Amino acid sequence: MALRARALYDFRSENPGEISLREHEVLSLCSEQDIEGWLEGVNSHGDRGLFPASYVQVIRAPAAEPPAPAAGARYANLPPGGFEPLVPPAAFSAPVQQLPPPAAAEPFQLPPAPYSGSYQPGQGSDDDWDDDWDDTSTVADEPGVLDSSYPDYDAAGGGGPASARYRLSTRSDLSLGSRNSQQPGHPHHHPGGGAKSSATVSRNLNRFSTFVKSGGEAFVLGEASGFVKDGDKLCVVLGPWGPEWQENPYPFQCSIEDPTKQTKFKGMKSYIAYKLVPSHTGQQVHRRYKHFDWLYGRLAEKFPVISVPHLPEKQATGRFEEDFISKRRKGLAWWMDHMCSHPVLAQCDAFRHFLTCPSTDEKAWKQGKRKAEKDEMVGANFFLTISVPTGPAAVLDLQEVESRVDGFKSFTKKMDESTMQLTHTANEFARKQVTGFKKEYQKVGHSFKGLSQAFELDQQAFSANLNQALAFTGEAYDAIGEFFAEQPRQDLDPVMDLLALYQGHLANFPDIIHVQKGALTKVKESKRHVEEGKMEVQKADGIQDRCNIISFATLAEIHHFHQIRVRDFKSQMQHFLKQQILFFQKVTQKLEEALHKYDSV
Amino acid sequence: MALRARALYDFRSENPGEISLREHEVLSLCSEQDIEGWLEGVNSHGDRGLFPASYVQVIRAPAAEPPAPAAGARYANLPPGGFEPLVPPAAFSAPVQQLPPPAAAEPFQLPPAPYSGSYQPGQGSDDDWDDDWDDTSTVADEPGVLDSSYPDYDAAGGGGPASARYRLSTRSDLSLGSRNSQQPGHPHHHPGGGAKSSATVSRNLNRFSTFVKSGGEAFVLGEASGFVKDGDKLCVVLGPWGPEWQENPYPFQCSIEDPTKQTKFKGMKSYIAYKLVPSHTGQQVHRRYKHFDWLYGRLAEKFPVISVPHLPEKQATGRFEEDFISKRRKGLAWWMDHMCSHPVLAQCDAFRHFLTCPSTDEKAWKQGKRKAEKDEMVGANFFLTISVPTGPAAVLDLQEVESRVDGFKSFTKKMDESTMQLTHTANEFARKQVTGFKKEYQKVGHSFKGLSQAFELDQQAFSANLNQALAFTGEAYDAIGEFFAEQPRQDLDPVMDLLALYQGHLANFPDIIHVQKGALTKVKESKRHVEEGKMEVQKADGIQDRCNIISFATLAEIHHFHQIRVRDFKSQMQHFLKQQILFFQKVTQKLEEALHKYDSV
Repeated sequence: MALRARALYDFRSENPGEISLREHEVLSLCSEQDIEGWLEGVNSHGDRGLFPASYVQVIRAPAAEPPAPAAGARYANLPPGGFEPLVPPAAFSAPVQQLPPPAAAEPFQLPPAPYSGSYQPGQGSDDDWDDDWDDTSTVADEPGVLDSSYPDYDAAGGGGPASARYRLSTRSDLSLGSRNSQQPGHPHHHPGGGAKSSATVSRNLNRFSTFVKSGGEAFVLGEASGFVKDGDKLCVVLGPWGPEWQENPYPFQCSIEDPTKQTKFKGMKSYIAYKLVPSHTGQQVHRRYKHFDWLYGRLAEKFPVISVPHLPEKQATGRFEEDFISKRRKGLAWWMDHMCSHPVLAQCDAFRHFLTCPSTDEKAWKQGKRKAEKDEMVGANFFLTISVPTGPAAVLDLQEVESRVDGFKSFTKKMDESTMQLTHTANEFARKQVTGFKKEYQKVGHSFKGLSQAFELDQQAFSANLNQALAFTGEAYDAIGEFFAEQPRQDLDPVMDLLALYQGHLANFPDIIHVQKGALTKVKESKRHVEEGKMEVQKADGIQDRCNIISFATLAEIHHFHQIRVRDFKSQMQHFLKQQILFFQKVTQKLEEALHKYDSV
Repeated sequence: MALRARALYDFRSENPGEISLREHEVLSLCSEQDIEGWLEGVNSHGDRGLFPASYVQVIRAPAAEPPAPAAGARYANLPPGGFEPLVPPAAFSAPVQQLPPPAAAEPFQLPPAPYSGSYQPGQGSDDDWDDDWDDTSTVADEPGVLDSSYPDYDAAGGGGPASARYRLSTRSDLSLGSRNSQQPGHPHHHPGGGAKSSATVSRNLNRFSTFVKSGGEAFVLGEASGFVKDGDKLCVVLGPWGPEWQENPYPFQCSIEDPTKQTKFKGMKSYIAYKLVPSHTGQQVHRRYKHFDWLYGRLAEKFPVISVPHLPEKQATGRFEEDFISKRRKGLAWWMDHMCSHPVLAQCDAFRHFLTCPSTDEKAWKQGKRKAEKDEMVGANFFLTISVPTGPAAVLDLQEVESRVDGFKSFTKKMDESTMQLTHTANEFARKQVTGFKKEYQKVGHSFKGLSQAFELDQQAFSANLNQALAFTGEAYDAIGEFFAEQPRQDLDPVMDLLALYQGHLANFPDIIHVQKGALTKVKESKRHVEEGKMEVQKADGIQDRCNIISFATLAEIHHFHQIRVRDFKSQMQHFLKQQILFFQKVTQKLEEALHKYDSV
């Protein structure tokens, strides 16, 4: 006897995991218990998924009549998070062949993806700045003391929008959770906003979609207003391949070197500081991981249409170990490279503050920090800062934009799959070289040495040279085994670092595409409304103009991604192949030395 | 209540697996059942092993008195084979680390050692010449039909001395068997010969020791006599490093090529014939494996102090498969090389007949074959054919000989261990390259190809070259995987072929050393007898002279072994390293091609 419910209103599924309902439709319920305002069930089409609990009435008596629609109750009891499937940050949840099962079978463990970029909100008071869980420890907390394996986001304070990037569903039977979900009480949470029956362009039902959250919807609907300073303007121009971000007229780079352990509170707390030297100032500053993390948070919040590079992964334990520090430094260097390469990010105020504020001037740092946190050009207002080419020729064809964005979506999906595959392969290949390959070559070396030792028992003067040559050959193979073990650090590790950085970008794009798609949908809707005489042409034109801005920005960002991708993969593949060639040449040279020893036999 | 026996006479253990008994000693018996005249038991020292059943009386009554010695019964009921531990042909039964357990757990399976050189006697009538189990099959018997995995030596007919090289003990609880044991009825089987109580130099108790079998004992004791033709003379000379075989004045080589399948009996039987072209005649002859096998048998019987190279292994099934034929041809070529390199073997009549008798002249072949089989210069007489330098300076110092032979014995033991180890390592290394290494590189190739396919979805004209370069890189790694899989054929296989050949030699030397040791023991004994006034000085001198001949031959053979060993291992290691260098250069070249593709990105 299945638990059933009757739909009180039509409901259109807008996100994966949701199902559509038609008014009066009878559904099977999986449980009467709602999860944050949503129920799970199977509709008359046989689709299983989630729908708002308030849209249905549970059937308790066999012949219960549907009650009259309770207008206004529509948005009551909505979940604080969407129900997009929980996916690892870098994945579109596409199955990847040959991946081993996860090490731990615990459901809903945080994916241990590198560059998870798990954003730590920095909106708390400055007072708790030094109490961040990461990068600071009491002396007793150094390597060897096992913290919780995963950061406790709730305890990290703040509860800001991005803090829940990997917040996990508490449900155990459904892999549904929220990516970029919001905590209840977030500023963008407008209970009761909008009206489904309104003839104006409707608001998105799922107020927690990125389109809504980012302020994209409000902007497209013409609700944003604010004064944009020249310094805040982000310019998109038309390049040979379409929209591009206007180049940074003063390009620079920034090195990250000399990670050093520093202490404070009379040695009670210690942390690692990195020396940064931006090429345009030449002035070194010291920054800790938490400074990077704060900056990342600000940028990710401010730039919904830009793929902010993810930071290298957080790590709760072993963070003073040399390997980890070296790996993090490389990860931060990659991150810095992508920051400096991006025309918008490289020039933004928060980044400038981060790169130039003297490490010793605590006051200036806090001032700049507060300024960045009080930036008004966020949310719907952010989109006002984007300026695009004007004139009729600069209006992008909607269909073409849609097709290009769809193409890019397929591309990112495929690239994500193949980078995951390559990461896995490279990781396995590196592991094999460090273990199996090394062992095999050293076993060969050992056996040759054994033979030479046997030959030394032969008492024949005329074979002494052979014995030496054989012993040398044994040592050569032993050395080659070591070469194999040392090699991944030279070639595969940098490839994997690059892939990790790109997995971060690939995890960003679904949201960027979502904003653009949301804007396009609004344009279509407004056109239909104009045709139906429900909307003024002028208003629809405004929507289209603002959508055009978002399209320009999205295409510029896509273009930038392709540009740095081609640049990075070219140089990284060249580096990889050069290192591989050097490696095989080194092996060859060792063997030639061994061969030479037989000349005198 | 252990079964016990009392020793009737003293018995001195002379072979591994035997234990010594003292008259009246009481022993525990493992079983009352004798095995071919031997019993197993534990003596009063706690040593467990075998002793002649006729030397003891089983104690049936608690107080049974030992009966009087039954002279003349001493050699009754002796086993037809010694009881040396059953060891693989190439081993001194030294444990080798990391060897996997044998695939089959069946006790006493024939060791599947390469170059087992399992000698098939060819002393049967010429009529059954074509019915040898090996190398001939009915058409229905071709690959795919599973014969017995191991040759049935008993069914192979003959029962000659060497047919039991790997004859297996029928006992299930003791790993004792016979190497080079003899079948009952062998010519050297002299029941009742010798007398323990004789004051003359005693005969070896174990009449099945190689020293006795080879005729070495009879020769040393001066019992051999025969007319040695000049052509039969084997000359040992003194070279810069001591005794050497006189060089072959007309050195030659012989190629073995073109193994071709031939049929007879209107296609009912088929076999493989190899084309042999000796360099000194230039006349090609065709020989089958069974011809090699016949020759090997004759040589192994005739030359007890010479290490006759073992033939490549027999194989009952799949012997028309290309891989097997190619492997056998290479094995035969190595064998031929060692035959031609040996001054004595290269010049002996049977080998000359084998190399020169026209394949088509059936009659001449049979004549030569019969002549070789009727050779009188075998057994004790064989030693008469060895001529050594004369004069007082040419008498070798007994202690020095003993020390050199002991040193060589340690050497062979160590070399045998290390060749087994190297064979195992090389085999594993080859297997890894064909499987794991290939797979790893191809997985890398596959992943690069996957990335290039993803990149092809990007719709960006400016990245087409990158995509092509990536695809090429993928193919390059795929090719490198193939290189790895193909490589062992070029370098490791030849090394393993060489090691197999040497394992054959190393399996020969214990017998050669045994003969020499037996002769030395006789000299010591005779000296003692002279001191005790039990032997004439002249007789003792004769024994020493004849022992000197055997010592010369043994040292010459040891010297020859070292010479070819240094030659072979030098050239084979050079070949191996050159092939490895070529391989890594090929890999490097492939990678350089791939790297070059990025120039135009």
